[in-house]
Amino acid sequence: MKIKLFTLSLLLLGTMSLQAQRRMLSVPELPGYVTLKCDFHSHTVFSDGNVWPTQRIGEAWRDGLDAISITDHIEYQPRKQYIPTDHNAAWKIAGPTATDYNIILVKGTEITRSMPPGHLNALFITETDSLDKEDFMKVIEAAVEQGAFIQWNHPGWKRQQPDGIPRMYDVHRELIAKGWLHGIEYYNDVEYYPLVMDMCHDNKLAVMGNSDIHGVISEQYAAPEYSHRPMTLVFARERTHESLKEAMFAGRTAVWYGDNLAAFEEFAAPMFKSVVKAGKVFKDNGKTIRFELANSSDIPMKLSGGPEGAPAALTIPARGMVVVSADRKYLTEPLTYSVDNIITGSNSVLQVEISPAAQ
Amino acid sequence: MKIKLFTLSLLLLGTMSLQAQRRMLSVPELPGYVTLKCDFHSHTVFSDGNVWPTQRIGEAWRDGLDAISITDHIEYQPRKQYIPTDHNAAWKIAGPTATDYNIILVKGTEITRSMPPGHLNALFITETDSLDKEDFMKVIEAAVEQGAFIQWNHPGWKRQQPDGIPRMYDVHRELIAKGWLHGIEYYNDVEYYPLVMDMCHDNKLAVMGNSDIHGVISEQYAAPEYSHRPMTLVFARERTHESLKEAMFAGRTAVWYGDNLAAFEEFAAPMFKSVVKAGKVFKDNGKTIRFELANSSDIPMKLSGGPEGAPAALTIPARGMVVVSADRKYLTEPLTYSVDNIITGSNSVLQVEISPAAQ
Amino acid sequence: MKIKLFTLSLLLLGTMSLQAQRRMLSVPELPGYVTLKCDFHSHTVFSDGNVWPTQRIGEAWRDGLDAISITDHIEYQPRKQYIPTDHNAAWKIAGPTATDYNIILVKGTEITRSMPPGHLNALFITETDSLDKEDFMKVIEAAVEQGAFIQWNHPGWKRQQPDGIPRMYDVHRELIAKGWLHGIEYYNDVEYYPLVMDMCHDNKLAVMGNSDIHGVISEQYAAPEYSHRPMTLVFARERTHESLKEAMFAGRTAVWYGDNLAAFEEFAAPMFKSVVKAGKVFKDNGKTIRFELANSSDIPMKLSGGPEGAPAALTIPARGMVVVSADRKYLTEPLTYSVDNIITGSNSVLQVEISPAAQ
Amino acid sequence: MKIKLFTLSLLLLGTMSLQAQRRMLSVPELPGYVTLKCDFHSHTVFSDGNVWPTQRIGEAWRDGLDAISITDHIEYQPRKQYIPTDHNAAWKIAGPTATDYNIILVKGTEITRSMPPGHLNALFITETDSLDKEDFMKVIEAAVEQGAFIQWNHPGWKRQQPDGIPRMYDVHRELIAKGWLHGIEYYNDVEYYPLVMDMCHDNKLAVMGNSDIHGVISEQYAAPEYSHRPMTLVFARERTHESLKEAMFAGRTAVWYGDNLAAFEEFAAPMFKSVVKAGKVFKDNGKTIRFELANSSDIPMKLSGGPEGAPAALTIPARGMVVVSADRKYLTEPLTYSVDNIITGSNSVLQVEISPAAQ
Repeated sequence: MKIKLFTLSLLLLGTMSLQAQRRMLSVPELPGYVTLKCDFHSHTVFSDGNVWPTQRIGEAWRDGLDAISITDHIEYQPRKQYIPTDHNAAWKIAGPTATDYNIILVKGTEITRSMPPGHLNALFITETDSLDKEDFMKVIEAAVEQGAFIQWNHPGWKRQQPDGIPRMYDVHRELIAKGWLHGIEYYNDVEYYPLVMDMCHDNKLAVMGNSDIHGVISEQYAAPEYSHRPMTLVFARERTHESLKEAMFAGRTAVWYGDNLAAFEEFAAPMFKSVVKAGKVFKDNGKTIRFELANSSDIPMKLSGGPEGAPAALTIPARGMVVVSADRKYLTEPLTYSVDNIITGSNSVLQVEISPAAQ
Repeated sequence: MKIKLFTLSLLLLGTMSLQAQRRMLSVPELPGYVTLKCDFHSHTVFSDGNVWPTQRIGEAWRDGLDAISITDHIEYQPRKQYIPTDHNAAWKIAGPTATDYNIILVKGTEITRSMPPGHLNALFITETDSLDKEDFMKVIEAAVEQGAFIQWNHPGWKRQQPDGIPRMYDVHRELIAKGWLHGIEYYNDVEYYPLVMDMCHDNKLAVMGNSDIHGVISEQYAAPEYSHRPMTLVFARERTHESLKEAMFAGRTAVWYGDNLAAFEEFAAPMFKSVVKAGKVFKDNGKTIRFELANSSDIPMKLSGGPEGAPAALTIPARGMVVVSADRKYLTEPLTYSVDNIITGSNSVLQVEISPAAQ
Repeated sequence: MKIKLFTLSLLLLGTMSLQAQRRMLSVPELPGYVTLKCDFHSHTVFSDGNVWPTQRIGEAWRDGLDAISITDHIEYQPRKQYIPTDHNAAWKIAGPTATDYNIILVKGTEITRSMPPGHLNALFITETDSLDKEDFMKVIEAAVEQGAFIQWNHPGWKRQQPDGIPRMYDVHRELIAKGWLHGIEYYNDVEYYPLVMDMCHDNKLAVMGNSDIHGVISEQYAAPEYSHRPMTLVFARERTHESLKEAMFAGRTAVWYGDNLAAFEEFAAPMFKSVVKAGKVFKDNGKTIRFELANSSDIPMKLSGGPEGAPAALTIPARGMVVVSADRKYLTEPLTYSVDNIITGSNSVLQVEISPAAQ
Repeated sequence: MKIKLFTLSLLLLGTMSLQAQRRMLSVPELPGYVTLKCDFHSHTVFSDGNVWPTQRIGEAWRDGLDAISITDHIEYQPRKQYIPTDHNAAWKIAGPTATDYNIILVKGTEITRSMPPGHLNALFITETDSLDKEDFMKVIEAAVEQGAFIQWNHPGWKRQQPDGIPRMYDVHRELIAKGWLHGIEYYNDVEYYPLVMDMCHDNKLAVMGNSDIHGVISEQYAAPEYSHRPMTLVFARERTHESLKEAMFAGRTAVWYGDNLAAFEEFAAPMFKSVVKAGKVFKDNGKTIRFELANSSDIPMKLSGGPEGAPAALTIPARGMVVVSADRKYLTEPLTYSVDNIITGSNSVLQVEISPAAQ
C-alpha cells in the first residue's frame, strides 16, 4: 500500500533554495583610514585562466573584497585557438557586474617575461593594446604614462628562480631608480617570500599579497585549511577607485594570508591595537591579577615570549577572547609579547606591550 | 631499512596542542544598554544533571555568555544514593571558577511540582534550604523574600501538559496578582511555546529562553544544526549582577534560539536597527536603484513580503550582506518587510521599513 | 629589539600546501551492477557557462563522479562576440583531462527550443554540427542516428512552464512513440518535478537528475546545506562508456539530490537493502528487544510510520547507526516503515520491512 | 498591521529536533580479526572527572567505539567532601546504559602513585575495594589475581617526569619480569611518547592510546583540529568482552591519534594493505602510466620518499583517492614509499611497496 505524502503544491514543483551571500570580514584598521580588502592578480579565459570574467566579480563579492584586478597575460595566450586575443575583453565583460555589485574593478594586465625581469602587473591602466610590444622598458614606460602602479609578481617563483630566493636584477634596480616599480608580491597563490619584506622596506615599495587565481577561489582556498584567499589590505582615505590608487602609491598596504599578516611595523603596531583590547582587571588576589584579552578580528593573534609571571604563549582566537592571569606587578608595567603571526620584516615579527584597561 | 624521521626533541615527547577559547557573539543591542547573554536554567549532578558544576562555567565561558544560573531541582534528587542532598553545593563548587572567568553566576533553584503549578525557577536567591518545604505558596513567598525573580519553566512541556498548549491555572494567576511571577520560558531545551509571547505581554512578564541543559552543551547544540545554545538576552545598564537583576525585573529581555529572536516589538524594532544597516545608493540608472543591506550580527535576518518593484524576500546572512535592487521610487518612500525570524507575538513578526542611506 | 624567528630555509621561501582530492562516495548498489555516479547536464564558456571545459573534469574528479556530459547549447551562443561558435570544442579541450583522470566523458549537447518541445539533451553523440539545424524532428532524428540517448530537460522549468507543472505535449508523445525519448529530468539544478516519476514509469523512460551547472559546483552546492551535487546513479555492468550507455537505455537509473533518492520501486528496494543492515538482538528482557540498524551509505535514511511497540520515526544517519528498541513480537514479524526520503513515484515513497539479524 | 504567520499546530508548540547519532568509523583491519575501537582510560565524578558515568557510555556510542573502561583513581578522591568514596559506583551506574547501547564496558581503575611507579590502570578487574591498599606490589598482585591487564599510563607525563622522557625504573622491570605489566600508553590525552614504541616492542607489551578524559570528549577533541578521540585499536577474534581481553594480552593493538597510527610493523603492514588499494593502469602512453590509489579508511595516508619517476610525496585523503602518474617501469617493479603517519617504532615509519592492480 502506498501512502499520501505530498500536498498538491509539493506534488508539482519543489525547490531547494540557494542565495548568494557576501561575507563581511573583520580586519585590523589604521586610524583615519578605511581598510580595503583587495586582490590585484587574477586570470580569466582571456589568457590562461579557467573562468569567464564575471566569475571573478562574483567571487570577490562573496569573499567580502572591495577591489580586484583582472590581470590577464599579454604575451601568453594559450586559448588563442578558440578565443581570439582581445586584451580589453575581460574588463568590458566584468565591468557591468562590478558596477552592479559595488566592487572596484582595477584595470590591469600581466607583462609576462622570463627572469629577469620576470612577471610584472601594471595596475590602474586604461588600455592594454599599447603594452603589447617587445621592448620591456618601453612597455613599462607606456604603462607608467597611463598612470600605472607596477607590481613585481612572485619574485621567488621556482619556475623562474629555481632556488626560490627572490633577488633584484639590474632591470629591477633600473625600474626603482626611475620610479617605475611600486610594489612587490610578498605572497602569491600559496607561496610567500620573506625577503620581500626587506626589499620593499629598503626601496619604499608597497608589500603586496594576491591570489594569482587561475581556477576557482572556493576550490583553491577551501576551508578548513583556508577560510579566505590571500589579499592585500590597503589603507585608503575612502572606499573609491581614486583613494585606493593614492594609498597604494603611498605604500599603505599589508598582506593577509592564512592566519598571518605581513606589514611594516609602522602599520602593524596600530593594526594590532585596533583589534586586540585588554579588559579591566576583574580579579586581584593581591598576588596575581586576571583580565580579558579580546580580539575582534577574523585573524587569530598568536603571542609568544611572554615575561616571567605571565603566560609564555597566548593565542587569542579570531573573534574570541582569552583570560590572562599574571603577576600583580603587571598592573604597573606592561606585558611584552612577540606576535608570531604578524610579520614585520624578513626576520622579525611585531613586538607588543599589553596592559589591563584602566579601572 | 628504517629512516631517520624525528629530531631529538620530537623523539621524546610530542603534544597536539589545545586551548580553551571563548567566542565573542555579535548580537543586537538596545540603545543605552549592554546586551548580556544569559542562560537561567541548568542542572548538575546535584540533581539530575550529568556534569560537575564547574563544567557549566566552562561551557558558559566558551559559549560567550555573560551570566548563567545553576538551578538544580529541590524535590527531585535521583543521585541521592551516591551524592547526599546538598542544595547549595553546586554554587559553592562553581563559584570560584565563575570568579576566575568573569562569569556572573546567578544562584537559582528549580521548584519541581506537578502541573499546576509545574516547574518554576527561583533566580537571584541566597540559599535554597529554606525553600525545601511542601507548601508551594510558602516556598515562593520565601524565595520572593530573598529577592527572587520567579520564572515559570516550559509551560507547554508535554509530560505535564499533554497537548503542548501552555495555559494559566489559578495558581499562576494568583502568583501574578501577588507580583510573585516575573518571567515565563518561551523557549526551553529544543521547544518553543508561541502563546507565551502573549501571556508575557498581557501580564508584563519577561520573555525567557534557556537551555535547561542536563547533559553537555556541545553535544546538545552541535553545529551545523545549531551554532549556539538558546539564550535569554538581557538589556542591562552595566555588566554586573545588580544591573542584570534590575533589567530582568524590568522585563528588558529577548530570546535567541536557532536563527530566531523573540522579543516584544518595543525591543525588537531597535534591535533590528542596531544590526541591519542600509548603504548609500551606489547605482541609479533612472529606473532602478541598487544599495547594500548589511547585517553585523550572528543572526541571519529573513525578510519577506517585500513591496512591488523590490525583492519579495531577502535573507541577509549572519555577518553578511546582500545587494538590493529596487524601483527608483524607493529613494523617497521606504521599503516594507516582515522579518520572519523576529517573533513579536504569538501570531506576529516584526514589520520593518528600510531605506537606502542618505547620500 | 628584533628576534630571530625563521630558520634559513623558511627565510627564503614558504609554501602553504594544497592538494587536489577525490572523494569516494558511498551510495546504494543494485546486486550484479556497479553504481556509476553521473551528471549528464553541464555548460562551459562555449555556450552560456562560466568555465573552461577542463574545470568540469576537475569538479567531477573531486566530487567522486564516474561520468559527466558537457552539453552546451546549440542554438544559444551568448559568448559569440568573443568566442566563435565551435560545437565540438568543449570535448576536444576536456577530453585529454578526462582521460588523465579516468572520468568517462559522454559527448552531449543541449537542443534549446521554446516549449514545446523545450530543452532536450542528446547524449552519446559523436558530433554536434549536423544537429545545428532548424527542424526539431530532423535534429532528433540525426541525433538518434548517432546513437543518442535523448533526455528531456527540466520539464517544469518556470520560464517555459509558468505553473511549474511538467506536461507532455504532442511532440513529446510523438518522440516516445518513435522511441526517440529515453529519459526525463526529475531533478535539475535546485528543482525537482514529482510528476516526472510517473511520466517515466508509464512510458518506460529513465529517471534523470543533473546539475545543469553553468557556474561552479563548489559554490552552487556548498556545505553545509549541500554536501554533494545532484546526480544520476546508473547501474551498469561495468565502469565503461559502453556499459553506461547500455544501462541508461535499459532505464537502470536513480536520482540522488540533497538527502533524497528517487528511483522506481524495483530499484529502490534493493538499493535500501544494500546499505541498511540490522544487527542481531543484543538485549532481550522478555518484553522488548534491542538491535542496531546501520547505514553504510552517505545518504541518511529517514524512516517514519513505525508500527505499534516500535519507534514511530527513525533517522539512520549517513555512515551511522541507531539502536532500535521494540516489542519482542518483532522477533518473528517484521517492522514496517516508510522511507520518507526514497521517492518511488509522484505520490509514494519506499515501504520497507526490517527484522533483526538471525542469531 | 500584523500578518498571520503560523498554522494552528505551530502556534501551540514547536520543536527543533535532535537525535543522538552513532558514527561508523572506517579503520584498517587485520585479516582474520575484527578491529575493536577502544578507550581504556577515563574518569567520572567518582574521582576527579567532571561527568556522571553514563556520559562516558553516551560519548562512546556516538563516537563509534566498541569498548571503554572507566578507570577512576583509587587514591585520588578530590570530590570526597560531596561524594563519598565508592570505587565500584561508576560501573554500577554505567553498566545498564552500556548494555542498552551494546558497548563493552571493561571494569578498570587507576592505581595512582608518584613516579616510580607512576600511574597504572588495572583493566578487566572484578572489583576495586581490594586494591585500595598501600603496598604497590600487593595491589598489582591482587589485580593480577583478578585477571587484570596492567597498563602503565602516560610514562612521560611532565608532572611526574619533568623532561618528558619515559624511562623504566626498577619497579617496572620487576613488573615485567613477573609478567605483571601488559601494555604502556604511547598516547595519552594530547601527548605521545615515541620511545614507548621501542619499550613495548622489546618487552612484548601492547601499545596503548587513550583519552584519559576528565571533561567532555566533544570539547576536548573538537573538529576541525580533531575529528575523533585518540583510541586503541584491538584486533579481536570476535566483538566480545572475552575476545577483547584475549587480543590485548596477545598484544594485537594499534593506536589511532589525530591523523596518525602507531603499530608494530607486523600489524602496520597488513593494516595499510587493508585500506589502500591501487587500481588498474587506465592510461599508458608508452612512457608513463596512470592509476588510482584509493584509501577506504577515515585516516589519510601520507606517503613520502617516492622513487625516481614517481611522485615524491602523495597524501591519499581519508575516504578519498589520488591519481598516480609514474614511469612505465613501475608496471614491473614496485613503487616504494614511507608512510609518514604510520609510526612503527621510536624512529621508524612504515615502508610500503605499491604496484598497480593486474589488468
